[in-house]
Amino acid sequence: MLSTRHAAARTKPLSRAFSSSIPRGRERLVILGSGWGGYTLLQGIDKRRWDVVVLSPTAYFNFTPLLAGCAVGTLEYRCALEPVRKYSPRVTAYQAWCDKIDFKRRRLQCMPATPAIWKHSATEHVDPHLGLQTIENAPFTLRYDKLVIAAGAYSQTFNVPGVKENAHFLKDIRDARKIHMRIIECFEQANQPTLSDIERRNLLNFCIVGGGPTGVEFSAELHDFLHSDLARHYPALARLAKINLYDVAPQILSNFDLNLVQYTEKTFRREGISIWTNHHVTSVEAGKMFVEEQGEVPFGMLVWSTGLAPNPLIDDIQDVKKYKKLALLTDDRLNIIHTDGTVNDAVWAIGDCSVIDGAPLPATAQVANQKGKYLVKALNGIARDQPISKPFEFRSLGNLAYVGNWKAIYDRPGAEGFLSRESGRLAWLLWRSAYFTRTLSIRNRILLPFYWFFNWIFGRDLSRF
Amino acid sequence: MLSTRHAAARTKPLSRAFSSSIPRGRERLVILGSGWGGYTLLQGIDKRRWDVVVLSPTAYFNFTPLLAGCAVGTLEYRCALEPVRKYSPRVTAYQAWCDKIDFKRRRLQCMPATPAIWKHSATEHVDPHLGLQTIENAPFTLRYDKLVIAAGAYSQTFNVPGVKENAHFLKDIRDARKIHMRIIECFEQANQPTLSDIERRNLLNFCIVGGGPTGVEFSAELHDFLHSDLARHYPALARLAKINLYDVAPQILSNFDLNLVQYTEKTFRREGISIWTNHHVTSVEAGKMFVEEQGEVPFGMLVWSTGLAPNPLIDDIQDVKKYKKLALLTDDRLNIIHTDGTVNDAVWAIGDCSVIDGAPLPATAQVANQKGKYLVKALNGIARDQPISKPFEFRSLGNLAYVGNWKAIYDRPGAEGFLSRESGRLAWLLWRSAYFTRTLSIRNRILLPFYWFFNWIFGRDLSRF
Repeated sequence: MLSTRHAAARTKPLSRAFSSSIPRGRERLVILGSGWGGYTLLQGIDKRRWDVVVLSPTAYFNFTPLLAGCAVGTLEYRCALEPVRKYSPRVTAYQAWCDKIDFKRRRLQCMPATPAIWKHSATEHVDPHLGLQTIENAPFTLRYDKLVIAAGAYSQTFNVPGVKENAHFLKDIRDARKIHMRIIECFEQANQPTLSDIERRNLLNFCIVGGGPTGVEFSAELHDFLHSDLARHYPALARLAKINLYDVAPQILSNFDLNLVQYTEKTFRREGISIWTNHHVTSVEAGKMFVEEQGEVPFGMLVWSTGLAPNPLIDDIQDVKKYKKLALLTDDRLNIIHTDGTVNDAVWAIGDCSVIDGAPLPATAQVANQKGKYLVKALNGIARDQPISKPFEFRSLGNLAYVGNWKAIYDRPGAEGFLSRESGRLAWLLWRSAYFTRTLSIRNRILLPFYWFFNWIFGRDLSRF
Repeated sequence: MLSTRHAAARTKPLSRAFSSSIPRGRERLVILGSGWGGYTLLQGIDKRRWDVVVLSPTAYFNFTPLLAGCAVGTLEYRCALEPVRKYSPRVTAYQAWCDKIDFKRRRLQCMPATPAIWKHSATEHVDPHLGLQTIENAPFTLRYDKLVIAAGAYSQTFNVPGVKENAHFLKDIRDARKIHMRIIECFEQANQPTLSDIERRNLLNFCIVGGGPTGVEFSAELHDFLHSDLARHYPALARLAKINLYDVAPQILSNFDLNLVQYTEKTFRREGISIWTNHHVTSVEAGKMFVEEQGEVPFGMLVWSTGLAPNPLIDDIQDVKKYKKLALLTDDRLNIIHTDGTVNDAVWAIGDCSVIDGAPLPATAQVANQKGKYLVKALNGIARDQPISKPFEFRSLGNLAYVGNWKAIYDRPGAEGFLSRESGRLAWLLWRSAYFTRTLSIRNRILLPFYWFFNWIFGRDLSRF
């Protein structure tokens, strides 16, 4: 295993060799993360004026609002992806984790996120099963002039035992794929002739924990899937299937207007989706969970979306002010603030791992996206020696959520009159059109409506592989 | 674990419940396999006159000629898939293996191919990691009146040690996906700053063993990928990449006309693909293989396509005549022949697991497809009491292979004059249009040209997940 210093010594020339020639004097901007914040910045940043390096464990940006749709086969996975690589070689990209940040020496300690590489011993033959010839990934350090921390957050499990091992999350396209495969798998398992009907019902009992927009939208998409394609191809089994949405709070969609919440609950009731508010999941095992109010609840699949937990990197950062240990505090220009009160004007934090001091905003894609756009202006301004003066301001475009059956809800807190509060088909149209955001590539802006239309005609994806 | 008899007792009523109501008197036709033979039959068979049951470990049909394209991201995986389920509930489908055939009692012994299901013990909590609460899949038996064996064959490894563990095959869409992910992974690994250039070259050394159409087409598709999208996004790394095609025979594409073979070899040489004929791979380990003529050869990815090995089910069948232990012998009406010489007129065998007595044909998709079509006529004839009289006849439509750079080769043995032997762009056009076969659903016949055009404009899929 290479020592960090050794690795550091070799990093610069190589990273040069692998990014297209770097003109003298260009400052290096390192972007940590390729989510809503980091990717928005990557898109807009002036790549001629900055030597941009992206460091992210995933090779692509997840267009999160489409994940629920991908998870039920309404959309091709690729529609929800934008590869970070598409900007290379103009941008240097490393698929790696950042383990440590040295704000004084402006150095990042990184660890490749790709699998370990095989070492070759020309002499002795080693049994491949022992995996003896794989070598640990070698850490490397990365110098920065300016740093943007957009590392995001993890899924919150509230330390309920067994969640990580037995539940599905819905943060990444990998999760969506696993969920899609598992749904079909449940039906194929339930289709085995030797099963009892109780075993079938257990396999076709789908549980969602967390009544936020993600949980609600997934329940809705799953309902549509159950009552269209699955009902057509597994008629006897689809009748045994059930969807249950759990939340510890007294109501779902806490950040929506009460009328819209009631509308959603009414819609779900009509659709046969059971809502269990004020319910507490105490532990999860393979195929069953334990609910304080219900006892043992067997399931075929459990999707868990109960908010955010701190990112280990944020945990590790010491000399920076934090918000409830979950995120880094920033000033209104999104620069981080050290514990001694000094603002670090070389380091910014955006997205779910950041909170503005005194003006906390919800950890949503919308906020991350707008912070990213703000930094595009700010950093391009710096590169042109025309720094912008005005601080970051959030303009809410409202909250949208799909509730199934071609219906959605739309809420714009504070706003009044037309398009302040909508439910039903009009909101559904809003919801669909909202996805034609500038964040998506032209490629996906063509693919998206194509697939919506296509799968509306031909049905969803039923293959599992 | 349920006893077979117990399972059998429960099978009939349930399978009835799960296929749409079965009119009295309809005979049950069981199709083993959903490949070129089985799926062609499934498409054409009269589902009103037959009680059709499909038994296949995979839930879909693989349109094999497109796998190489999928493996390099030219096509969406879904383009190469047709779910067997799309015919249910009119057709009963079980995702299961057939372990044994009892020709006398007309019974199949089957084992579900889905993962084992969790058993629920309301009392004791079991550690999910111990997996204690999973139960073995229960075998079940299936009665048939008529049976078509289209179980296909396995990949041949010639017992070279380490192949199964360390090489990729290209028989299924899962293989294509793994290959695509591995190609990108090799580049991301080679992109790590701490690697030496030798380590990079090793990771970007791609080896293909087997100079048949599959090996040749994959080499060609990989070359196109390397020299377009990968060269654009990893310019420095793409220069280190190399493609090597190995074969034990003195030439590749043994079943093609010699001029076409020479054309292919010339094209490959120009494209920088190394062809190593008369080379013997003696063993494979993680990241390297040993070649008799070259010694140790490190690789980032190895694709293995050296023909077919017998299917365990075929191995297991005893009282039926076989062809070189690899396939079941059939008469010219494709009925199997028992060792005592009697023809079994209730059982047919088609595809790679079958050979016509005295008139062996190559184990290709084309032959399997034509045998499937013949059985559609034959079985629909039986159901209408108008049995057809004429035996099966194979009409060769010629052999096509893509050789890269918008060029292909086409060979029609026996034929003379126009379109008997073609190479280059015209053959490429033939090659593309050949894929608009009636085997594909309208869905995929629309998707296919769409993706070809789309990825020609926007480039291939670079995401790995």
